[in-house]
Amino acid sequence: MNKRIGKQTVKIASNPRIIATMSTVGPKEGEGPLKDYFDVIMKDDMFNQDSYEKAESAMLYTTITECIKKAKLTEKDIDFLCCGDLLNQTISSSFAARNIDIPYIGLYGACSTMTESLSVGSMLMDGNFGKYIIVGTSSHFSSAERQFRFPLEYGSQRAPTAQWTVTGSGAMILGKEGNFPYVTHVTIGKVKDYGIKDANNMGASMVPAAVSTIYQHFKDTGRKPEDYDLIATGDLGKVGRELVEKLLLEYGYNMKGIYVDCGEIIYDNEKQETGSGGSGCGCSAVVDCGYIYKNMLNGTLKRVLLVSTGALMSTTSSQQGESIPGIAHAVSIEY
Amino acid sequence: MNKRIGKQTVKIASNPRIIATMSTVGPKEGEGPLKDYFDVIMKDDMFNQDSYEKAESAMLYTTITECIKKAKLTEKDIDFLCCGDLLNQTISSSFAARNIDIPYIGLYGACSTMTESLSVGSMLMDGNFGKYIIVGTSSHFSSAERQFRFPLEYGSQRAPTAQWTVTGSGAMILGKEGNFPYVTHVTIGKVKDYGIKDANNMGASMVPAAVSTIYQHFKDTGRKPEDYDLIATGDLGKVGRELVEKLLLEYGYNMKGIYVDCGEIIYDNEKQETGSGGSGCGCSAVVDCGYIYKNMLNGTLKRVLLVSTGALMSTTSSQQGESIPGIAHAVSIEY
Repeated sequence: MNKRIGKQTVKIASNPRIIATMSTVGPKEGEGPLKDYFDVIMKDDMFNQDSYEKAESAMLYTTITECIKKAKLTEKDIDFLCCGDLLNQTISSSFAARNIDIPYIGLYGACSTMTESLSVGSMLMDGNFGKYIIVGTSSHFSSAERQFRFPLEYGSQRAPTAQWTVTGSGAMILGKEGNFPYVTHVTIGKVKDYGIKDANNMGASMVPAAVSTIYQHFKDTGRKPEDYDLIATGDLGKVGRELVEKLLLEYGYNMKGIYVDCGEIIYDNEKQETGSGGSGCGCSAVVDCGYIYKNMLNGTLKRVLLVSTGALMSTTSSQQGESIPGIAHAVSIEY
Repeated sequence: MNKRIGKQTVKIASNPRIIATMSTVGPKEGEGPLKDYFDVIMKDDMFNQDSYEKAESAMLYTTITECIKKAKLTEKDIDFLCCGDLLNQTISSSFAARNIDIPYIGLYGACSTMTESLSVGSMLMDGNFGKYIIVGTSSHFSSAERQFRFPLEYGSQRAPTAQWTVTGSGAMILGKEGNFPYVTHVTIGKVKDYGIKDANNMGASMVPAAVSTIYQHFKDTGRKPEDYDLIATGDLGKVGRELVEKLLLEYGYNMKGIYVDCGEIIYDNEKQETGSGGSGCGCSAVVDCGYIYKNMLNGTLKRVLLVSTGALMSTTSSQQGESIPGIAHAVSIEY
């Protein structure tokens, strides 16, 4: 029996449980409005390593291994690790995975990786390919800045639409049993490119993908915004969030009061000088694994739609004059 | 019912069919020993584009869309595109996918991407998440050289263990019915790092991962080398292939006469001056989609094990003194 409903959505009938989550953030995120929801706040973002890239990988490794401990499991119990990140050749994930004794499925979805990994993990659980699967991702402000923009030492001025890459890592363990929030639907996104070329306005470049995936999720499932307690995009920031609201309203979906963007809520953007908001794979990862998951556990949120959003460009594509394609994957969770 | 057998292998009981494949190669690969098995040989490796990166993406786009035509399907019929490549932020795949109207699951497994995408696609087919799924990957000599090594204009001398990145792209369409070669087992690899740091000896760096995955596949399935007509690793080259044979013999598995490496057989390495052999995601992709698939269709090969192999480093990790982790995923196919 085909599990597909509508054009892009699959029903996850076995409802894999999210039996544990772990969120680790840097000092700046640990001073933001969501600080009480994160499991670990790093004292300094070098994490006892000698480079930003090694720090990011160590943070991801620790997040994954601590999540496994939290679920009272060992690496041997877990059938797949589905993971990815922003760095060239996803070295945070690959180097974390070399010290983890679990079969590894490497993903690349830029900042959509949290829901991409959760989507793939949920489908593999539902297909009975594993008993437990761990999914996750990371990003690091300093490794992302020097890879995608400028070395921090330049002290470059930032555009008002620019976003601040979250130093953070999130992981979730999927299992078959227990009283935990569970996955009900997955909507895999298509790559959308409306020609935006400004790498300082990544939020806007991901908007068409976010709108496309959320719209298609509603169409496929017959649901409306008000069927959710919360819909959370990944890292569109204030600029992108306003555009998504406006565009979905034109399609007849009023998101007001139900919709937040993880990038907009992770910082106090004015006080913390984070421009339009947070970004990076770690942004939706820590907000989903921290703030949202814990508010599901305590009964505040009963049904949420997580929609991490990714900008799929590289420095090379931008230097060659290309625009920025975006993607978004949606996962519906209930408790 | 859990589909897992042994520690790392899953049984794909529904046997998704590989209903069509497509292979596109550059001019150099089109002069090699396997030239008669490739569908398209490019006249020049720029593919009418103004950069190597755009050429690679255009080649992948053409391979995917032509494969869909070959299967007499349209993009609308296909439920997922599972794809990845070697370039930073996998831009070949992302930029190809923006012009393809199919939900996109981006992968990163370096040169293991052909069997990684085939593994993920096969599990999603077996889990009834789609009717048709297309999987594939690409690499390009010139985009890889300037990203990972030196600009071609330098004319750097190459080490004897160095390999030659294949300009090529392969795609496979999985379907549920018809008289075609079909997938029976998938063994997802773990990341293995035995401390090799020489970026000019990538074959050797991937050997531990290849040995680990092949050994575990035998253990999990109870099979032996002689149960296969052919076992083909991805891009270990001559140096790596000899090491794999030697190490597996120590574990009691004699691969002699059954085992080839796609990188070793795609070029006439002495005449074409390709060092230890071909490499890159495209290497196992075009050999699997061209030479091996066509030899299954014509009855020469009845049961094969495809084992694409990836080196998961980046230039940054190498510059920071890190060794090179490797991974390998195995897919068993019968006809």
